[in-house]
Amino acid sequence: MKAVQVVGYHTKLQLTDIPEPTVEGPLDVVVRIGGAGVCRTDLHILEGQWEEKSGVALPYTIGHENAGWVHAVGDAVTNVAVGDKVILHPLITCGLCRACRFGDDVHCENSQFPGIDVNGGYAEYLRTTARSVVKIDDTLEPADVAALADAGLTAYHAVAKAANTTRPGDVCVVIGAGGLGHIGIQVLKAISGVTVVVLDRNPEAVELAVKIGADHGIVADGTHIQQVLDLTGGHGAEAVVDFVGEGGATREGIAMLRRAGNYYVVGYGENIDVPTIDVISTEINFIGNLVGSYNDLQELMTLAAQGKVTLHTTRYRLEDFQQALDDLDAGRVRGRAILVP
Amino acid sequence: MKAVQVVGYHTKLQLTDIPEPTVEGPLDVVVRIGGAGVCRTDLHILEGQWEEKSGVALPYTIGHENAGWVHAVGDAVTNVAVGDKVILHPLITCGLCRACRFGDDVHCENSQFPGIDVNGGYAEYLRTTARSVVKIDDTLEPADVAALADAGLTAYHAVAKAANTTRPGDVCVVIGAGGLGHIGIQVLKAISGVTVVVLDRNPEAVELAVKIGADHGIVADGTHIQQVLDLTGGHGAEAVVDFVGEGGATREGIAMLRRAGNYYVVGYGENIDVPTIDVISTEINFIGNLVGSYNDLQELMTLAAQGKVTLHTTRYRLEDFQQALDDLDAGRVRGRAILVP
Amino acid sequence: MKAVQVVGYHTKLQLTDIPEPTVEGPLDVVVRIGGAGVCRTDLHILEGQWEEKSGVALPYTIGHENAGWVHAVGDAVTNVAVGDKVILHPLITCGLCRACRFGDDVHCENSQFPGIDVNGGYAEYLRTTARSVVKIDDTLEPADVAALADAGLTAYHAVAKAANTTRPGDVCVVIGAGGLGHIGIQVLKAISGVTVVVLDRNPEAVELAVKIGADHGIVADGTHIQQVLDLTGGHGAEAVVDFVGEGGATREGIAMLRRAGNYYVVGYGENIDVPTIDVISTEINFIGNLVGSYNDLQELMTLAAQGKVTLHTTRYRLEDFQQALDDLDAGRVRGRAILVP
Amino acid sequence: MKAVQVVGYHTKLQLTDIPEPTVEGPLDVVVRIGGAGVCRTDLHILEGQWEEKSGVALPYTIGHENAGWVHAVGDAVTNVAVGDKVILHPLITCGLCRACRFGDDVHCENSQFPGIDVNGGYAEYLRTTARSVVKIDDTLEPADVAALADAGLTAYHAVAKAANTTRPGDVCVVIGAGGLGHIGIQVLKAISGVTVVVLDRNPEAVELAVKIGADHGIVADGTHIQQVLDLTGGHGAEAVVDFVGEGGATREGIAMLRRAGNYYVVGYGENIDVPTIDVISTEINFIGNLVGSYNDLQELMTLAAQGKVTLHTTRYRLEDFQQALDDLDAGRVRGRAILVP
Repeated sequence: MKAVQVVGYHTKLQLTDIPEPTVEGPLDVVVRIGGAGVCRTDLHILEGQWEEKSGVALPYTIGHENAGWVHAVGDAVTNVAVGDKVILHPLITCGLCRACRFGDDVHCENSQFPGIDVNGGYAEYLRTTARSVVKIDDTLEPADVAALADAGLTAYHAVAKAANTTRPGDVCVVIGAGGLGHIGIQVLKAISGVTVVVLDRNPEAVELAVKIGADHGIVADGTHIQQVLDLTGGHGAEAVVDFVGEGGATREGIAMLRRAGNYYVVGYGENIDVPTIDVISTEINFIGNLVGSYNDLQELMTLAAQGKVTLHTTRYRLEDFQQALDDLDAGRVRGRAILVP
Repeated sequence: MKAVQVVGYHTKLQLTDIPEPTVEGPLDVVVRIGGAGVCRTDLHILEGQWEEKSGVALPYTIGHENAGWVHAVGDAVTNVAVGDKVILHPLITCGLCRACRFGDDVHCENSQFPGIDVNGGYAEYLRTTARSVVKIDDTLEPADVAALADAGLTAYHAVAKAANTTRPGDVCVVIGAGGLGHIGIQVLKAISGVTVVVLDRNPEAVELAVKIGADHGIVADGTHIQQVLDLTGGHGAEAVVDFVGEGGATREGIAMLRRAGNYYVVGYGENIDVPTIDVISTEINFIGNLVGSYNDLQELMTLAAQGKVTLHTTRYRLEDFQQALDDLDAGRVRGRAILVP
Repeated sequence: MKAVQVVGYHTKLQLTDIPEPTVEGPLDVVVRIGGAGVCRTDLHILEGQWEEKSGVALPYTIGHENAGWVHAVGDAVTNVAVGDKVILHPLITCGLCRACRFGDDVHCENSQFPGIDVNGGYAEYLRTTARSVVKIDDTLEPADVAALADAGLTAYHAVAKAANTTRPGDVCVVIGAGGLGHIGIQVLKAISGVTVVVLDRNPEAVELAVKIGADHGIVADGTHIQQVLDLTGGHGAEAVVDFVGEGGATREGIAMLRRAGNYYVVGYGENIDVPTIDVISTEINFIGNLVGSYNDLQELMTLAAQGKVTLHTTRYRLEDFQQALDDLDAGRVRGRAILVP
Repeated sequence: MKAVQVVGYHTKLQLTDIPEPTVEGPLDVVVRIGGAGVCRTDLHILEGQWEEKSGVALPYTIGHENAGWVHAVGDAVTNVAVGDKVILHPLITCGLCRACRFGDDVHCENSQFPGIDVNGGYAEYLRTTARSVVKIDDTLEPADVAALADAGLTAYHAVAKAANTTRPGDVCVVIGAGGLGHIGIQVLKAISGVTVVVLDRNPEAVELAVKIGADHGIVADGTHIQQVLDLTGGHGAEAVVDFVGEGGATREGIAMLRRAGNYYVVGYGENIDVPTIDVISTEINFIGNLVGSYNDLQELMTLAAQGKVTLHTTRYRLEDFQQALDDLDAGRVRGRAILVP
């Protein structure tokens, strides 16, 4: 089958022909890929940023945001059948460790990460297991939802926590109206009664955010901290969800946070660097956020099927992967780039 | 009456004679002081560290950890009567703001802080309100529990949060076996099923900690991070309660924290300085902690009455306040110094 | 001033002239009534159902759902000023007991209930305290929101619990699309991502429920249990909020509940009568619901100001109280009847 | 191998010889039984009470509280190895349904229950899966802990919920100081700061309960409701855990419950029959409780290894199963009867 592989760091991906994956274990599921998200992490992999962390042997197939149709299943698979439309949870988890037994998939002690440390979805087929396939509604298409598998699931997971720790009428600031922020805003409006205030440096992104449901949009032009304080009677917001995490976002975000507020760290790059005296005197919390669980992904797919969460995508043929990556790197992709067969 | 007052910064406290406080409002309560804790914060006040923050007009009476007997009450006071033995919540709160209406006293938008910004308890009498007096059991003496009013209440509040976010058998590391740590360890053992691991640079403090209930005591000698990892199968602890917050404690504490773990910030001094990539890739949280609520103080007094939380104290006559402060400053006080009438 | 009073049980209310209430205590607030809800409980009071329970001395002024303008305040009132538009929490609470200190107003150990055991709002003025007045947005009118003070607050409180114990995409069945159900549906849609299924015997009420946001409306015609099971893959709903509580509603509601589901009891009349073996083998819960807290009422007013919760009302002049009661008794009121000055 | 089987209802169990179970699936685990609890449910099975519910084909091997040593494992088993000492979670769960993915094993949609609907542990060997085996500490013996697998796990699960919904110093009434109550009391004291009040009709059981940690023991002699009210200032207890559920226990238990309290249903037999008006006017809750999860069992085993939970057992040889059942039926067993090889 066709597959796009990492053959070396600081060099280009290569389209090649490799054997189709087959069912080897009783819980294995082989998925025919219908859409594979092209993500900034893919660029970082090629730059070697994941080389040491993943320890993956080259060459291998890249692509960690995948959806498609079930092509073959092992003997013990009971939750999907051949032909089912599915989205793939990004991790393959063991199901036996204490974290898995709590439903906390992302902290599985024995997980694999297709596209990062085993073969991923820039290909015609991918092998995962029954524990990673979520059936999607008939009305959804794999290529339309693939990017929700990782980026979307991360946003969902973070804002669902924010929804659970706020009260109706509380203010939640969303820093960053890019891909994740876009999903986060829609989810917040769909599952909570918070007032959503969106910040971004890009006026167009702010405008779009308001269009999809944000209650207030603020262009980060230097007056934005004060604008948030003004909106909140000088107190600051009960929650800040930071999808940026670099370029001074954390320092600014903390300045917008109310006493006893929660700061959700999602984007990354810079350090949180805050005096402990400030943490205790205002009693604020910093909450880390990784990708969501299998059940989180089910819930996100329910919201997608209900039309509450949508994603703009630009499709490329699998063979045109290089164009997709180039467009992403150059900021030319509107929404998310998706490779389709 | 006799009162010990701040008459200037960088100068000594002064014993003087001022009028007794009287009931002015319907919820006022005048308390005859039975014990007033001598705290490191009192030294900091004299050094001027609170001058700008408190904005208090000099002279005023110092002392923010107080207990005694109800001496007089306003017309609307229904929860205590003259003669009742009471401990004083450190804040005087409004009862009307949204934080107060949630029982979240410490975030009251209109609070006063006796001993910090109004007259405190280094005196024969102190005026507070019905909202700040907690009746204590007949078996307890004001001088024995006074230091639980602030230091103890802070420790209680932090470890109660840790108790609520852990499961029986989880490991909770307590950094610092001083005054707060001492209370924290006793409370953790009284209200949760966690395994308590205590760290301190002082071997005697570690020994005492184990004596009062810690499951493991580790002297912080450079091998302590590894010892905690060894105790936890290499994973780290589900919770770290940091009563130190300086001298590198936070960096070390984070290194002992398990994935998805909670770091409780109580002590302060240095910055939390942690890469956002580390926060999200391990999905850890930092939880700020200020003093507890009125109901927290009730619960702590219940534990004290049950003999589950005890405090070693050294008593000084009110007139000997200077000796008490000097002893504290020189590290000569065993347990907590308490001024008594 | 004019006031409508209970002068005896099983006899008609009487319009009379009594002295205006005045500020007596420092936290007292006198409110000029702008709207007083006419509630089925008022009919029950006249039937003597509350005689023993309330122990109120006759005559007294009826009316427990009130909103208006602050007319006078005591010395210690800081949260409202003369002229403010306010809605009244139905209870006057002490602020000093442990329940009050948790923000759990409704379990105050020393509360009064205007309209039930002290003078209420079928009058020109009413005396309450600072602890019971919630400022409302400029865009809201007292007569439009008065009925949210008790009926609406009860519905809000119950469905907010349901929202907190469900996940997005879960199914919440609402039994009863009358006054409380009407509010409950709007609140559920505003603050959660649950799918709302409404049941009522009245097809028009079901139709209206769907119009204001319910995802599915089912006429209770004997096939309704099966319809709910069909909608939920045979499993039943994760939550049932029962605004009826009589006529067999509880037995039917339990039959619609999924394993590990929560049954919210709001309406009352019949007994819950369920075998303990069924409770434990399916591990279901029954959750009691009384009126909400002061902060709940603030939140509900925020939703009202945002236009997310609206109420159809029919206004009557205070003098026409008898007409309002008669219309209510005869089922002729559309929405809620409100007495206005 | 030897196995004790149900060969018909209303007839005696029969010791027979059947083939040893073998590993058939990749996650299978064959356990050499070291201890099998003899439970009242086993008597009920023989009386035919489970015939319809389980639908099991006769003959089959009875015994649902099992512990022992791992004898053989399938290819995909990573959490235990041959020779490991293990206790068995009572259910075999699928790991793929939504309940399993939340860690809520007991609501698995595809579970088996060895000893009830497939072969159980009155035998030399039993087949289960990797998802059901919990490693136990070297210091524990299978025969000593076997009865914790089901009865103990149910008690743990219920009181852990009670611990999570109470505050230190709250009162928790335990109704029934038999086998489950015995475990429940020990767990409550080990993991919470509640004051435990135990009720039983049997004075010896009450005495033993106090010996193992209950703070107050009350013989249910007709004055017990009043005694609980007296102990709680007339308010009642914040939590009641009812291990009896018959003979009027629920009516009495509700009378001991404080406003806003939680009633944990564990024992069963009678109906909960309570007016909805009482449920809503006091805002009480009824919480159903089934057996705990896999992780709950891990936690209980940690407490057992720490010596915080112990169980008195009486051992019988497997061949003497009839004696064990007869003794149980006649009330002659002290603690729990355990069959050993």
